[in-house]
Amino acid sequence: MKIDILSVIPELLESPFNHSILKRAKEKGLLEVRVFNLRKWAVNDYGQIDDYQYGGGAGMVMMPEPLANAIEELQQEKKYDEIIFMTPDGELFEQKTANLLSMKENILIICGHYKGIDQRIRDHFVTREISIGDYVLSGGELGAAIVVDAIGRLLPGVLNDETSALFDSFQDNLLAPPVYTRPASFRGWEVPEVLLGGDPKKVDEWRLEKSLELTRMKRPNLLSDSDL
Amino acid sequence: MKIDILSVIPELLESPFNHSILKRAKEKGLLEVRVFNLRKWAVNDYGQIDDYQYGGGAGMVMMPEPLANAIEELQQEKKYDEIIFMTPDGELFEQKTANLLSMKENILIICGHYKGIDQRIRDHFVTREISIGDYVLSGGELGAAIVVDAIGRLLPGVLNDETSALFDSFQDNLLAPPVYTRPASFRGWEVPEVLLGGDPKKVDEWRLEKSLELTRMKRPNLLSDSDL
Repeated sequence: MKIDILSVIPELLESPFNHSILKRAKEKGLLEVRVFNLRKWAVNDYGQIDDYQYGGGAGMVMMPEPLANAIEELQQEKKYDEIIFMTPDGELFEQKTANLLSMKENILIICGHYKGIDQRIRDHFVTREISIGDYVLSGGELGAAIVVDAIGRLLPGVLNDETSALFDSFQDNLLAPPVYTRPASFRGWEVPEVLLGGDPKKVDEWRLEKSLELTRMKRPNLLSDSDL
Repeated sequence: MKIDILSVIPELLESPFNHSILKRAKEKGLLEVRVFNLRKWAVNDYGQIDDYQYGGGAGMVMMPEPLANAIEELQQEKKYDEIIFMTPDGELFEQKTANLLSMKENILIICGHYKGIDQRIRDHFVTREISIGDYVLSGGELGAAIVVDAIGRLLPGVLNDETSALFDSFQDNLLAPPVYTRPASFRGWEVPEVLLGGDPKKVDEWRLEKSLELTRMKRPNLLSDSDL
């Protein structure tokens, strides 16, 4: 899988893509991530890529020309399955979006900054607008990192134990059950008996029960979307 | 404001905290972010901080001892208003959470990895559990970066134009209206007349109308939560 990213602060993404899961995915040749500096396509020698917004108001807007030129130059090299714009008013990113995107070959992600990008780029180039949540960030870079991480760990062979991702929260519309590790007694706080008992069937029952209980308590909306 | 972060991959957070808004906030002395390597509190010389989970199953669990010792050592230096654990089964992070947290003085954020942290740490130390969205990531670091970014830009003096953050998406339960910048005509795609007309009242009306229209179309649930 290949993911290209357009950003005005490519440096911001250096460390997230060079550690942890993504580093492993890249080393195994399962994922290629390239971050391009949008200023390469700036409209002048000063590196300008933004301008005041029409109609007035605080905050700059990213100009259509640099983005259009960047996208078209990158498209000469490959066809993108999706051109994604990270924006707080996009569709909410969920695990099923990650699952879906993990099956694509080529993705381009545009990171906005300031007040956003000129609407005409959204209308004519972008195929999918994604928000990672109902909050505002200083730019799209961290959102892009989130999307790449969520997708990357789903690629077959990236996680050490392939069964591991299947038992994550959300894969079955349930939150994960509590987990415990050694020591069994820590400052007088004990691990639940059933987990120490060694009966796999009872452990499974306890985990499902806890998952349901936690989901009902914390996120009942997940249950109404599921078949349980 | 001071934010401390506990992580097993502190390097991952280097570049996000040294660019953009957060760099500016730090340079202005408005925000101090420190990232601590949890392995400093490892249970042995091999740097062990995780172990197999009780009850069996794929994935390691972060042990209670290193976390408890780290938290208590950091607490000797200051009192935290919140000890936050980043986890997919936490409360969903929203703009109002960012607003609330931006008024705190001292925050500690714990980044989980693998299958999560021992439940006893959640029960006895953590004061708030936050999820940045309904998807699974390879660790809590990017979530912590999101929280710090969302909070950091709200601190008075961080954004160049203080009015700017007030007109973001979500601050009034509405998505932001479309934005446009130069040129007025780009490849035959025109900027809406009203934005070029120079009548501030008409511009405001158009923006509110577009905000309502976009919110109704894309995120009607936001409207039902508001007074509009």
